[in-house]
Amino acid sequence: SPSESSSHVEPGTDQKTPGSEDVVVTSEDGITKIMFNRPAQKNAITTQMYREIILALEAASKDNSTITVITGNGDYYSSGNDLTNFTKIPPGGIEEVAKSGAVLLREFVDCFIDFPKPLIAVVNGPAVGIPVTLLGLFDAVYASDRATFHTPFSHLGQTAEGCSSYTFPKIMGPAKATEMLIFGKKLTAREACAQGLVTEVFPESTFQKEVWARLKAYAKLPPNAMKISKELIRSNEKEKLHAINAEECTILQGRWLSDECMNAIVNFLSRKAKL
Amino acid sequence: SPSESSSHVEPGTDQKTPGSEDVVVTSEDGITKIMFNRPAQKNAITTQMYREIILALEAASKDNSTITVITGNGDYYSSGNDLTNFTKIPPGGIEEVAKSGAVLLREFVDCFIDFPKPLIAVVNGPAVGIPVTLLGLFDAVYASDRATFHTPFSHLGQTAEGCSSYTFPKIMGPAKATEMLIFGKKLTAREACAQGLVTEVFPESTFQKEVWARLKAYAKLPPNAMKISKELIRSNEKEKLHAINAEECTILQGRWLSDECMNAIVNFLSRKAKL
Amino acid sequence: SPSESSSHVEPGTDQKTPGSEDVVVTSEDGITKIMFNRPAQKNAITTQMYREIILALEAASKDNSTITVITGNGDYYSSGNDLTNFTKIPPGGIEEVAKSGAVLLREFVDCFIDFPKPLIAVVNGPAVGIPVTLLGLFDAVYASDRATFHTPFSHLGQTAEGCSSYTFPKIMGPAKATEMLIFGKKLTAREACAQGLVTEVFPESTFQKEVWARLKAYAKLPPNAMKISKELIRSNEKEKLHAINAEECTILQGRWLSDECMNAIVNFLSRKAKL
Repeated sequence: SPSESSSHVEPGTDQKTPGSEDVVVTSEDGITKIMFNRPAQKNAITTQMYREIILALEAASKDNSTITVITGNGDYYSSGNDLTNFTKIPPGGIEEVAKSGAVLLREFVDCFIDFPKPLIAVVNGPAVGIPVTLLGLFDAVYASDRATFHTPFSHLGQTAEGCSSYTFPKIMGPAKATEMLIFGKKLTAREACAQGLVTEVFPESTFQKEVWARLKAYAKLPPNAMKISKELIRSNEKEKLHAINAEECTILQGRWLSDECMNAIVNFLSRKAKL
Repeated sequence: SPSESSSHVEPGTDQKTPGSEDVVVTSEDGITKIMFNRPAQKNAITTQMYREIILALEAASKDNSTITVITGNGDYYSSGNDLTNFTKIPPGGIEEVAKSGAVLLREFVDCFIDFPKPLIAVVNGPAVGIPVTLLGLFDAVYASDRATFHTPFSHLGQTAEGCSSYTFPKIMGPAKATEMLIFGKKLTAREACAQGLVTEVFPESTFQKEVWARLKAYAKLPPNAMKISKELIRSNEKEKLHAINAEECTILQGRWLSDECMNAIVNFLSRKAKL
Repeated sequence: SPSESSSHVEPGTDQKTPGSEDVVVTSEDGITKIMFNRPAQKNAITTQMYREIILALEAASKDNSTITVITGNGDYYSSGNDLTNFTKIPPGGIEEVAKSGAVLLREFVDCFIDFPKPLIAVVNGPAVGIPVTLLGLFDAVYASDRATFHTPFSHLGQTAEGCSSYTFPKIMGPAKATEMLIFGKKLTAREACAQGLVTEVFPESTFQKEVWARLKAYAKLPPNAMKISKELIRSNEKEKLHAINAEECTILQGRWLSDECMNAIVNFLSRKAKL
């Protein structure tokens, strides 16, 4: 059901080959669209999906599209990291899970830092965790008024990623950023827009129509000028962002092995199992 | 007529000597005022005007005024770079136009980066292009509610200048800055104020009266304290801003010779010629 | 009386031993609270109080509380530096006052830069000067709708401190920051919130109740995750902030000896003496 938890254990999700239907990539009108497509799990992101998105971004950076869009299918944009990613313990044990998770996360975020064309988020519904923190690396963020923005890291004994420890204070100032990143305050779409995380909010009823009309117009602008503009805007801090990403992933790897985090995840999963 | 295009070819504009009436400088009440004064061409900025403004800023930095104001005469603040600057081809050809344009632009923007006294924009009406991007280098920006803020660089195959590739994301975050600088979204005065580009918006009916009363009061504050405060605030990033300016001008020089840009300018000028 | 000026000369204030009642420190529910407690002098900060707050912050960083709060007792949050600090001239003369004042200020601000746990300001009323500028170093700022934010440095011939010459332009952009820091514009709580200096504003009638309920909930979150998150967010610019603080204090030391500043303080104190 659409309200099913992102923690629903789905054995074998991880074994899908590239081309699985959990991430759907399409391209038309100069726009490559990468869509989270696990609506029954609120578009929670499995290990396999991280890998598919990396491949999709690499392909989009070289295809003949002008702009690239990330969006979600169904009610959610994405509920974030699928916590069952932590429950598949390999021979190397939990340390191995933490290490390989940190390596994958770093590679995933690096792809967003380096993406060379305008990258736009079409946030169709609630976003939790890494789909929120990554928004600081997008060039524009359009949100339905149904969308919410939630980063409950401390509640799970974890810390910020997606370069948000750097981009969020820069975008909204530390007084607003800390309430999200440390205290886990959930923002409405209008709040996220007032604080600069979101470019513009649209009523749900006209969201898809208005946003895609606008994106199609933008996709017709001179592609080289846009690509060079983006490089100009982003090049100043690319090196800094890669360093932040590396630091965040190292710290998270330690967090995942901490008592605070393990207890929080066990509690979360067992609460969900009882529902 | 006031609605005449900024692309109107006005032979010989360029030959005016310093002291032309296209830039008017006055000084009273501790305030030096530098005014765009080409209202019939929407205060479009000719090559000669860039040079006159450089001289006016150099003089204002040394005169006995406390603060310096830039404003426009007539309906517009300024419609930006006069595109006919590109139509006067010297013996060195279009490459020579691009090269000398980049040198002049860099020198012009450097004057704003280094200006030592409080610098205030009194934005009396619409602003397009470089008069908008420069606002990130001002210390305060007061706008009439008639003002709009428009940077259609991509539409003309061009890229951002005036250090806006650095100042705009810093001021408003990348999600808002990109929509202006890459996608050419035009902001109202209230939007520009909400996003931190404008200090305060006033109703057109009382704009001049309210703003000048406030500026006269500010001009009476201790001048050394204000000058030292400005230096303190700006010194941290002066070196960075000069580097950004140099990079933006180099990239623009290349853009001006690109097919995307030449086609866009030819289309713009021929559309205007048909009106 | 509650409306008595912060410049009221109170001989011997300075001689109080640590444990004076001008700064009250309490700890419960995982929260250490440091309270300005000179309500009859609008919580103006004496030399002795700077020293007590430094000690209180050092103790709070090591105690077993999870978060630390700074607030004021009575109508004011704090009216800032007690200008009578400048009237107690030691044998070394006014130069000695300026030098030791700059050393103390630098040490005081360094404690805020380095504070390792979430640090929250509960701004119960008007704030003037350094209690305002320091807010850029807090992790969250909750304000009553009675609070105002005022930094009239230029009016007193002085310049910005508390790292505000760096944090304010970063938080609100130069066009808003300059109006506060150079022109001394006073902000309402709602304006300060819109510009990112304040996290959230509450009606005075429910302020204490709502804020403390929220803080008690935050204090129950995993403490290590919060501490590490804060370090992650702040570590990027700690070195920069210490350099800014040193520069601001050096410049202020010079300002305090300038004619502009001495004249302004004499005028301020004699105006108050006549009331």
